[in-house]
Amino acid sequence: MTGTMSEALRTDDPAEAIRDALARRRSGSGDRFGELTHYAMAVPGKLLRPLMVVASAEAVGGAADTALPAAVAVEHLHVASLVHDDIIDGDDLRRGRPSVHARYGVADAIVTGDALLFDLFTAVAECVAPPRVVVAVVAEFARAGGDLCRGQVLEAAMVSPGGTRPGSGLEDYLDVAAFKTGALFRAACRAGALLGGGSAEQVDLLGDYGHHTGVAFQMYDDLLPYLAAGASGKPDLSDAANLRPTWPVLLAHREGGPEHREAVETALSGALPPAETLELLRFAVTDSGALEAARRGARERSHRAQACLRGLPGTAAVARLTGIAEIAVDRDR
Amino acid sequence: MTGTMSEALRTDDPAEAIRDALARRRSGSGDRFGELTHYAMAVPGKLLRPLMVVASAEAVGGAADTALPAAVAVEHLHVASLVHDDIIDGDDLRRGRPSVHARYGVADAIVTGDALLFDLFTAVAECVAPPRVVVAVVAEFARAGGDLCRGQVLEAAMVSPGGTRPGSGLEDYLDVAAFKTGALFRAACRAGALLGGGSAEQVDLLGDYGHHTGVAFQMYDDLLPYLAAGASGKPDLSDAANLRPTWPVLLAHREGGPEHREAVETALSGALPPAETLELLRFAVTDSGALEAARRGARERSHRAQACLRGLPGTAAVARLTGIAEIAVDRDR
Repeated sequence: MTGTMSEALRTDDPAEAIRDALARRRSGSGDRFGELTHYAMAVPGKLLRPLMVVASAEAVGGAADTALPAAVAVEHLHVASLVHDDIIDGDDLRRGRPSVHARYGVADAIVTGDALLFDLFTAVAECVAPPRVVVAVVAEFARAGGDLCRGQVLEAAMVSPGGTRPGSGLEDYLDVAAFKTGALFRAACRAGALLGGGSAEQVDLLGDYGHHTGVAFQMYDDLLPYLAAGASGKPDLSDAANLRPTWPVLLAHREGGPEHREAVETALSGALPPAETLELLRFAVTDSGALEAARRGARERSHRAQACLRGLPGTAAVARLTGIAEIAVDRDR
Repeated sequence: MTGTMSEALRTDDPAEAIRDALARRRSGSGDRFGELTHYAMAVPGKLLRPLMVVASAEAVGGAADTALPAAVAVEHLHVASLVHDDIIDGDDLRRGRPSVHARYGVADAIVTGDALLFDLFTAVAECVAPPRVVVAVVAEFARAGGDLCRGQVLEAAMVSPGGTRPGSGLEDYLDVAAFKTGALFRAACRAGALLGGGSAEQVDLLGDYGHHTGVAFQMYDDLLPYLAAGASGKPDLSDAANLRPTWPVLLAHREGGPEHREAVETALSGALPPAETLELLRFAVTDSGALEAARRGARERSHRAQACLRGLPGTAAVARLTGIAEIAVDRDR
């Protein structure tokens, strides 16, 4: 099945409850500060992480409502990181609109991201749950946020100023994907499981599911610029312009022939304009068979994720989590 | 009494315990990520906010140790805001060294600030206290952080791109000071009082003390560029270069004669280089008597802060808090 993310979620509709909760959270002040955070949060994305929070709570037999503040929180963390990432990457487009810094300037965009980060912990503190559980959820998000930052620094370090050497990058790539993407998916699922009253073992299992789904999602995300062009909502050129050694590119370099290795090295040397960089990478990735290998790798991860779900009591929620892991590696944006 | 902040604190030595706790928190990884956060936290400032956390805990009869993680947390929040502020203000010097973005670039500085923000909540989650108290402390810091962001957006809005109109700025100024500085001082004191086991009334009183001390501190901070030059560790020119309508400048505009008003308006029009802007403001502020009025206003605030401390049980800690409120408006850096 190939489709946009929203199709997969329409089966049940926790997404509606999440959108409502997000809208309520942003309906506050009408001043510039309110405008900034509102703008950042205004176009809901796929809501993957909040949906995972809610489904994880239900998967362990808890109620969706209990987990809603944490669902709101995780989306805030995600969007905050996008707002700051877009500044760092110089991406002027996000979800089809000008990114926050493109619209309001870098200064206000930095502050907007910060405000969303604080608001996420305000949301968590409002959870109606035993306080020790709330503290555990705070710790989950705080750790995931720290991991996200660590992932970004690691990723930036893979890109040397004079161009990127893709040599031994696959291990680093997996670390970066685990920190940058896996950590927040993991925290989302652990938070949901904690709030749903899950056992320590269930929390760990759902955390592992989240981790693997996150890494799979990131791997597949890296493929998107090499599939149908222009559909991802963010500029396909971003990774290429930032000389980022992504999953299929690193596979092309390791598994491909000399001509593919050379193409990757030339592309990542930073000597070419972004569009030509992407073209050269596209050749290496498709011609070497790395595109298919990359897709297989992402799917394997998705299956590892799904294996973690066995034996959880909430069947309908488990089906939704399975669906998310499936669509994470089979989508067009 | 005029002196550096450290003199006021040497009476007892909770500062040592705080420095140790901060150092332990940063002794983690030796990679680039660790280096970044370490660099940001390496030169301890006056530690005013963490000292207020600890003293507030003791002021309500609690133990200093209980409050230490929150003391660490508040310093992380403070430094994170400085790291991001320095990017926004283009200040390349902080505490006598290159600021984080001047040393490591804007991208890593954004991430460093974010990492410190997450780490602050990790620290809070580690508090050894009843979980409902820990959740309350999380909520305090999250709200203060949000207020801080709101204050920054408000402050930026006072400075129009074509130059600043100081007209009706005093009320806005007080809002900004309350959000940008008062809120975190307030949260520090409330967090300490909560962790020390204070009653709701004591928490409120210490919060008010913190708020007033913070506003007094900010007012006095605004005077520093007009006192002995070059001692503040951050460039005296920063506020002038950013055309920021500060406390003494707004007083000179409201209370001074036509020549002072004109000087302020010319200076804040943005037509002059920073050094000349500061010179013109210096004339307006000193010649109009605003400098003295500004100092008086700061001292009045400090007295309001001290009045909140009456009747609290921990005498030694109350004496330290009184000292902090005093030195907040009588220091040379």
